[in-house]
Amino acid sequence: MSNAEARDQGAQRSFDTDPEGRAHAIRLARELLMIGENNEDLVLRYLDILIDKELPNNGKPKKKVLIVGAGIAGLVAGKLLKDAGHEVVILEANDNRVGGRLKTFRNEGGKKHFKDDKQYAEAGGMRLPSFHPLVLALIDKLGLKRRLFFNVDVDPKTIDPNAPTPPVVYESPIEKGKVWRNGPDEPGFKSPKQLNRTWIRTNSEQVRRFEYNTLEPGEARERINKGFQLNGCAAREEAAYILHRALEPVRDYYSVRVDANNRCNKPFDAWVEGWARVIYEFDEYSMRAFLKERAGLSNEEMELVGTLENLTSRQPLAFMHSFLGRSLINPGVTYWEIVGGTDRLPGELHKKELRDEVLLNQRMIKIEHNRESAFPVCIHTIHDKTIGDETQGDRKIHEGDFAILTLPFSSLRHVMVDPPFSYKKRRAIIELHYDAATKVLLEFSKRWWEFTEEDWKNELGGELYEKYQDPAYQPTEDELFPAAFTVGTKPGTEPGTDLFKAYYASHGPLEQEKLDRPASNVRGGGSVTDNPNRFIYYPSHRIEGSDGGVVLASYVWADDARRWDSMDDEERYAYALRNLERVHGKRITRFFTGHGATESWMRNRYAFGEAAVFTPGQWTQFQRDIPTPEGEVYFAGEHISLKHAWVEGAIETAIQAALDIHERD
Amino acid sequence: MSNAEARDQGAQRSFDTDPEGRAHAIRLARELLMIGENNEDLVLRYLDILIDKELPNNGKPKKKVLIVGAGIAGLVAGKLLKDAGHEVVILEANDNRVGGRLKTFRNEGGKKHFKDDKQYAEAGGMRLPSFHPLVLALIDKLGLKRRLFFNVDVDPKTIDPNAPTPPVVYESPIEKGKVWRNGPDEPGFKSPKQLNRTWIRTNSEQVRRFEYNTLEPGEARERINKGFQLNGCAAREEAAYILHRALEPVRDYYSVRVDANNRCNKPFDAWVEGWARVIYEFDEYSMRAFLKERAGLSNEEMELVGTLENLTSRQPLAFMHSFLGRSLINPGVTYWEIVGGTDRLPGELHKKELRDEVLLNQRMIKIEHNRESAFPVCIHTIHDKTIGDETQGDRKIHEGDFAILTLPFSSLRHVMVDPPFSYKKRRAIIELHYDAATKVLLEFSKRWWEFTEEDWKNELGGELYEKYQDPAYQPTEDELFPAAFTVGTKPGTEPGTDLFKAYYASHGPLEQEKLDRPASNVRGGGSVTDNPNRFIYYPSHRIEGSDGGVVLASYVWADDARRWDSMDDEERYAYALRNLERVHGKRITRFFTGHGATESWMRNRYAFGEAAVFTPGQWTQFQRDIPTPEGEVYFAGEHISLKHAWVEGAIETAIQAALDIHERD
Repeated sequence: MSNAEARDQGAQRSFDTDPEGRAHAIRLARELLMIGENNEDLVLRYLDILIDKELPNNGKPKKKVLIVGAGIAGLVAGKLLKDAGHEVVILEANDNRVGGRLKTFRNEGGKKHFKDDKQYAEAGGMRLPSFHPLVLALIDKLGLKRRLFFNVDVDPKTIDPNAPTPPVVYESPIEKGKVWRNGPDEPGFKSPKQLNRTWIRTNSEQVRRFEYNTLEPGEARERINKGFQLNGCAAREEAAYILHRALEPVRDYYSVRVDANNRCNKPFDAWVEGWARVIYEFDEYSMRAFLKERAGLSNEEMELVGTLENLTSRQPLAFMHSFLGRSLINPGVTYWEIVGGTDRLPGELHKKELRDEVLLNQRMIKIEHNRESAFPVCIHTIHDKTIGDETQGDRKIHEGDFAILTLPFSSLRHVMVDPPFSYKKRRAIIELHYDAATKVLLEFSKRWWEFTEEDWKNELGGELYEKYQDPAYQPTEDELFPAAFTVGTKPGTEPGTDLFKAYYASHGPLEQEKLDRPASNVRGGGSVTDNPNRFIYYPSHRIEGSDGGVVLASYVWADDARRWDSMDDEERYAYALRNLERVHGKRITRFFTGHGATESWMRNRYAFGEAAVFTPGQWTQFQRDIPTPEGEVYFAGEHISLKHAWVEGAIETAIQAALDIHERD
Repeated sequence: MSNAEARDQGAQRSFDTDPEGRAHAIRLARELLMIGENNEDLVLRYLDILIDKELPNNGKPKKKVLIVGAGIAGLVAGKLLKDAGHEVVILEANDNRVGGRLKTFRNEGGKKHFKDDKQYAEAGGMRLPSFHPLVLALIDKLGLKRRLFFNVDVDPKTIDPNAPTPPVVYESPIEKGKVWRNGPDEPGFKSPKQLNRTWIRTNSEQVRRFEYNTLEPGEARERINKGFQLNGCAAREEAAYILHRALEPVRDYYSVRVDANNRCNKPFDAWVEGWARVIYEFDEYSMRAFLKERAGLSNEEMELVGTLENLTSRQPLAFMHSFLGRSLINPGVTYWEIVGGTDRLPGELHKKELRDEVLLNQRMIKIEHNRESAFPVCIHTIHDKTIGDETQGDRKIHEGDFAILTLPFSSLRHVMVDPPFSYKKRRAIIELHYDAATKVLLEFSKRWWEFTEEDWKNELGGELYEKYQDPAYQPTEDELFPAAFTVGTKPGTEPGTDLFKAYYASHGPLEQEKLDRPASNVRGGGSVTDNPNRFIYYPSHRIEGSDGGVVLASYVWADDARRWDSMDDEERYAYALRNLERVHGKRITRFFTGHGATESWMRNRYAFGEAAVFTPGQWTQFQRDIPTPEGEVYFAGEHISLKHAWVEGAIETAIQAALDIHERD
């Protein structure tokens, strides 16, 4: 029996002959595309509620709502409900912060992450795409400043620091002709020119991205591809194009190509049905199964594409997760960041709108609902920070009319629920997959990644510059870290300590390694390597009054992250710095301040993972039941939405939960 | 296009028309089946080397061999090479133990895991199947005692404590008629009678296994199955049988059914080819894809089977992993444990054979090989335990003729290798998946799981016994833990402390929960629940001179384990005990000693995971290259073998590596 015949036997179902499966897929597609019951655009509706007006005045009774989790979902729901006159209590497990997986490392509350107090860096969410209007419009509405996040490095000469910020514009793909905007066009605004000067370093070959992405396949591309054992035509193919070509037939289900880069959605019904077919046909595929069976990629092509396009570690996870990430995005997308740090968004909501409503140090451990009592919902919390301190009490009971649970299902798994939720909700709480993600951030006193060779010469001085030009040169211990801050730090608590230095000293470099890399001279963007750091991001913007910056030395997912998670912090810094040197050269240690920060979201006590990422089949299996309320208990958060890991999904579900409760009698 | 047609397009390859893929699959099958180059049985060869003789006297030069890792693979390779006259150095990262993932918790070296010094419990490997002759024969050869591990609970009246231990018997499936044994049959030995009195508790329904496994589908089975929303015929099907029926067609590839329970291998060539077809056709399947597409299971059937048969958390991982675990095992299998703890095996090898060869506190950070030097291999180690202590030095350099690397690839990922290994080996080190596994162990002063109701009455006294019979009864704080040991323990370091108690007190039970469970009255075996503990194991044997015992309150894999991994130890104990009460009743806390131990292998600094478990396709993609030596550098360990997670695989690869080096000129 051939594999195809074998697969035949078990896969006889088809969208056209399976009315139940078809109806389910269409429902899931409509949820994905944000189509309301009357074919209205839910994004427009949510923009109306969150930005333009508020929850409609409906004459329904005021309620007391308990919201669990002061992440963005809990805060948005809380703000809407409070503004509509409801009584709101937000229970947050952390004792010192709100924001959940929007978390910014900075020196505050006695913490010294960075040598320079002005520096900060993102532990979690760091870029907000232009096709997510809710979060961007909320940022604008709160009076926070946003600026471009350079996902691809740019020509700094084309950055206009005085350029106006363009408005948020949302063209409805559902209600044709409707355009939502929060301001007039800013003709003065232009995105800076992308240069693609950042690095690809794999199998000991290193090229700049623009050398790899040339219009004609060139020597640099062949060198990289041959490192993955690809020869002949395969050595000439661009990794991103191999992936693009593989995904195009799936995109044809719901859209038509209008030129080499752009697509146009099919007419409404065909568009919805096309997406339903995609879900029906592809939800059971892992990324690997798709690339292997549908796209016919060889193992080596998958190794190339997986490494350069960050798919390797998520190969066993759902194809649809990675497909959505690459197909809901139009090529003109820009990314935004919040000036001052992403956590300003939850921070502003907290301080300005919900100061009294948020109770910290309140981890939910039990929820009783459907009670015959004055308040149908009762939530028990424990005070992790002060537990065992008898003067504080260990536990509190909160009563309300309704609850919105925004905590991850991975964490909800350990909460007692009485009476139990419905069967499929329980299964989703047990099974919904959460991915690992880990970041290692290193601070430098100068922005060496922006240097030209001339800058290096000036910064190091001619003599030292020449020394580092010799590939065999080994800096002395005194030469390594002149910028490092060690005075007064306690061993084992900061990367700049003796313990860090011991780890660093112990980890190389190999004597045969030539680490005389050229000046990077990039602004923003990211590099990719097959060494354990995998993805490196440089800051998009300088921080005023600071000569330095914080590099995201390693950003890794899934198995790539698990390869870091059992290490102590000090080791992570040492390894991350060493691997950074392998891409950028030994001389970068001259500017290492001895400071940094690291976050493993899988080890984070209250997150239990970076974000929900479906494994194959989970969308079809569970999504019908994931957002469904259980009596008086509602759910919100990125994991409830179909925009896993994105702030936008958390906001959408928060608005919907607030609206649903507001409309209850 | 139907799903079947779609799969067609990408899966046209077939075993019969793909000579290269076929040859590769046959090679992998032969490796799996332990068939040597000349069709000899490698198990017989390894038994000969490890147990009966030693490495053959071949007149080849003596070598200096550096072995990285003092787990079972490193120790076995070290012993064989030392016995053959080679110079051996074993470098172990831990500073206080050998054994790797064979690790036994007991009170020693200043650690107080249990109240009763006689107690011990397994953090890692705990059961050795009868079809793994190498490890069992090695245990016998070292003079260690083994006894049955009751994977299924037994009738204690049928345990004969004076029964002789039967010999290890290995009937070669390759060299027909050849039987290896290390002693004469022991006619006095009989396995105790299995009772299946342990529990299945899912969706708030609880039955004993024998009630579920009845010959005729009964009310208990329907209750459990209906909890998973299965109705009609599906409510009457036994979970294990659903899985059995799904796997049978795959087993038909290489064997024939001879009765309801037994199979017979096809003739040699057809047997090998059958396995090659299985690998060729099924390696790309995840467990879920197989159950869904090949076996046609509904989501609810998968939820039932996944929960009871422990497949849910590994659904996205390779079908072949779970299939091997259920198909290389004949139904008459017994399991063994080592009297005194599994770590006696590595401990004995270390103390008796390799006391001077093992160097502790030596973590490899760099390996240079293929050097033009007196010693071609050079390994740099760091001393984690004493790092930063200048009197000790941080780093050591070891030189040798050859190396055997036994550390997990997840850990090897961070070791510098110069020159880099071959392409596919590097990819395997980057990509090979390691699974998570976590255990929570709780000590009790009495073996309440063995109690009858009569025993409970006697132990508690009539008055207290009656109190607990009332489902609404809430024990006072004083009544909860009379056996707990708290004097002299430091808060936060032991489960019996105030911190544990605070967590415990805060976590329930729900007032509405009826926790008046009947006496379990079981000896050994395990229960299954859909609460976060998932799998519970009771000790097979009593410890002489001790009234108590240690229960494996939670044993979880993959996503089930990740739901525990970000918790602190104290919380794990509190949650695990609460979930244990939900299966066994409130009154068990009377005997909790306040002590326990827990191990998350994914967080273990040197393990980086429980064991290698292939994701779909990794076997075909990488196994040709995983065991291949790189010049003077050899590889051994469970991840090198095709017996992932088993001691036997570690030993097989250790013998092969030792043999290969021994035979080098």
